[in-house]
Amino acid sequence: MTSYLEQEIYQQPAVIGTLLEAEAETAATIAAAIRAFDPAFTYIAARGTSDNAARYAQYVLGTMLRMPVALAAPSLHTIYETPPDLSRALCIGISQSGASTDINRALADAKAQGALTVAITNNPESALAQAAHHHLYIHAGPERSVAATKTYTTELVAVAMLINALVISDSLASSLAALPALTQQTLELSAPVKDWVQRYRYMEKLVTIGRGINYCTAFEIGLKCKELNYITADGYSEADFRHGPLALIAPGFPALVVAPQGAALPGLLEFLDLLRERGAETLVISNDEAAIERARYAMRIPELPEWISPICAVLPGQLFAMHLAGEKGYALDTPRGITKVTITE
Amino acid sequence: MTSYLEQEIYQQPAVIGTLLEAEAETAATIAAAIRAFDPAFTYIAARGTSDNAARYAQYVLGTMLRMPVALAAPSLHTIYETPPDLSRALCIGISQSGASTDINRALADAKAQGALTVAITNNPESALAQAAHHHLYIHAGPERSVAATKTYTTELVAVAMLINALVISDSLASSLAALPALTQQTLELSAPVKDWVQRYRYMEKLVTIGRGINYCTAFEIGLKCKELNYITADGYSEADFRHGPLALIAPGFPALVVAPQGAALPGLLEFLDLLRERGAETLVISNDEAAIERARYAMRIPELPEWISPICAVLPGQLFAMHLAGEKGYALDTPRGITKVTITE
Repeated sequence: MTSYLEQEIYQQPAVIGTLLEAEAETAATIAAAIRAFDPAFTYIAARGTSDNAARYAQYVLGTMLRMPVALAAPSLHTIYETPPDLSRALCIGISQSGASTDINRALADAKAQGALTVAITNNPESALAQAAHHHLYIHAGPERSVAATKTYTTELVAVAMLINALVISDSLASSLAALPALTQQTLELSAPVKDWVQRYRYMEKLVTIGRGINYCTAFEIGLKCKELNYITADGYSEADFRHGPLALIAPGFPALVVAPQGAALPGLLEFLDLLRERGAETLVISNDEAAIERARYAMRIPELPEWISPICAVLPGQLFAMHLAGEKGYALDTPRGITKVTITE
Repeated sequence: MTSYLEQEIYQQPAVIGTLLEAEAETAATIAAAIRAFDPAFTYIAARGTSDNAARYAQYVLGTMLRMPVALAAPSLHTIYETPPDLSRALCIGISQSGASTDINRALADAKAQGALTVAITNNPESALAQAAHHHLYIHAGPERSVAATKTYTTELVAVAMLINALVISDSLASSLAALPALTQQTLELSAPVKDWVQRYRYMEKLVTIGRGINYCTAFEIGLKCKELNYITADGYSEADFRHGPLALIAPGFPALVVAPQGAALPGLLEFLDLLRERGAETLVISNDEAAIERARYAMRIPELPEWISPICAVLPGQLFAMHLAGEKGYALDTPRGITKVTITE
């Protein structure tokens, strides 16, 4: 029997298709409410995997809508009980379960102050979904593996649907519509990962690096590797990495670089050259030949616009983390020491 | 001859004293400008160590002034050339050198849009200092070690001075005035670190954990350990750590927890119990007996108000990273592969 994790990874094209169809109207309604509210900035509360979806939202709201985005510091709401002034904010809470106390509290504080509130969750009955002015239901279906995969990509798609409804352009709409096929194609292109992953059987440390719109992808792949493989696998922006952590790189140090075509690519190619000079072991996720050439192992994704590339680029990373856990003989569905729903205050 | 690193660590009480005296008036002027501008939110651009000072600013502006804070995504200014709408923002650029292209660009974009701009740097002649409406000079003197220490704590003090000038309260002012003595006392209390650090000679991985106002401290100590010791040493919020990375903790896994007295302490004590249950090796920085009891090794700091605790709590972490590099036989002033001023775009 295959693991829930594997099943859920391969369900992604289908659940993304369901989400795109089921929630297009809701996305349009929320977009209209956002336009009417005219927020001064957006405030996003999220934890763990959902916080990586928030990072994605920060970049696409920035590049597509010039919207300033503040990622919430939930302890300001819970521990310190000094919520910031959110009266002019669009406040978005992102949570698979909709049950995390601190995220719910941030949204409730924002609502009490007059903010426009939107929940993105996988449970319409959840406290978060019920409390917000609007709810965008990600339709991922039950996720039984502790490591989140399909709820992450559907959270990204939900954010992309809001962008599409706010910007209104044929090219954005058609790239969204292509996502079920693009994710399916990415999963097929990722099949070889299984064959070469054994090289990393004894790897204990990894860094994962992206830039701009795929900063979230580097973080999320790092998180999957930590959860499933118990290795240190920290995500970095390529620029932040140069400010200090670069000292880590000695010959053989493994670095996974997310470098799809787009505005961030030239800097990443130069960074890959720097890694090569220092003898690092480079793994690359890309659809660009120059990036792929610079990799020890490349994970290919199809051609697609940069703004939706994180929805595909994370998939080979999910498979890498899963197959590596298989090689190491670890439990795929129930990593030690963590549970599906984490309640933090 | 001692290293520049060691000299600069021990200069901190003196340079903090200089800064407090030299810039009190400038801080008051900037505070008046901020009050007059009445920003809808604050936007902070910074990288590396200075980004940890930005994290501090996020929490103290939140707790003391209810100010929403967005940490900049510099690539929106440089790579994507789509700066967010900052016309109603207070924009703060923090940079030791004042020479980082991306930070300067974020500040220039903000100014062009009508934002109120403030630079915090160690060089009044720098491009950043010259471009901003206001400059707060941290007076740290030349920092010759590549790993930043005294420029970090003086950046924190500069932020605290702005808070003090904005809030105006006798108790804040007197806690600021006590900082030279408090930091001196912390350095004296930290002397034993040198004696027990050899236990970690062969440690290759560490996690550093804080919460709320000391989230920045966990990140900054992690960064020093990476830069000076080439170990993976990632900083986490205690809450984020529970959402996945907790899976890393096996018996003997070292965790450095920053847990001074304050609102975040009860959750951290519970977290320390969880670490103990799982057999982790705990290092604790605290001024609280209950936290100190839960440590394999404790690094004591004096009693002080939580809002300024990061200025002292980082010091034993700096010494830990330095002495550990000494035990490992690494260069203290010039870690491999990185340079003092990092220019990123």
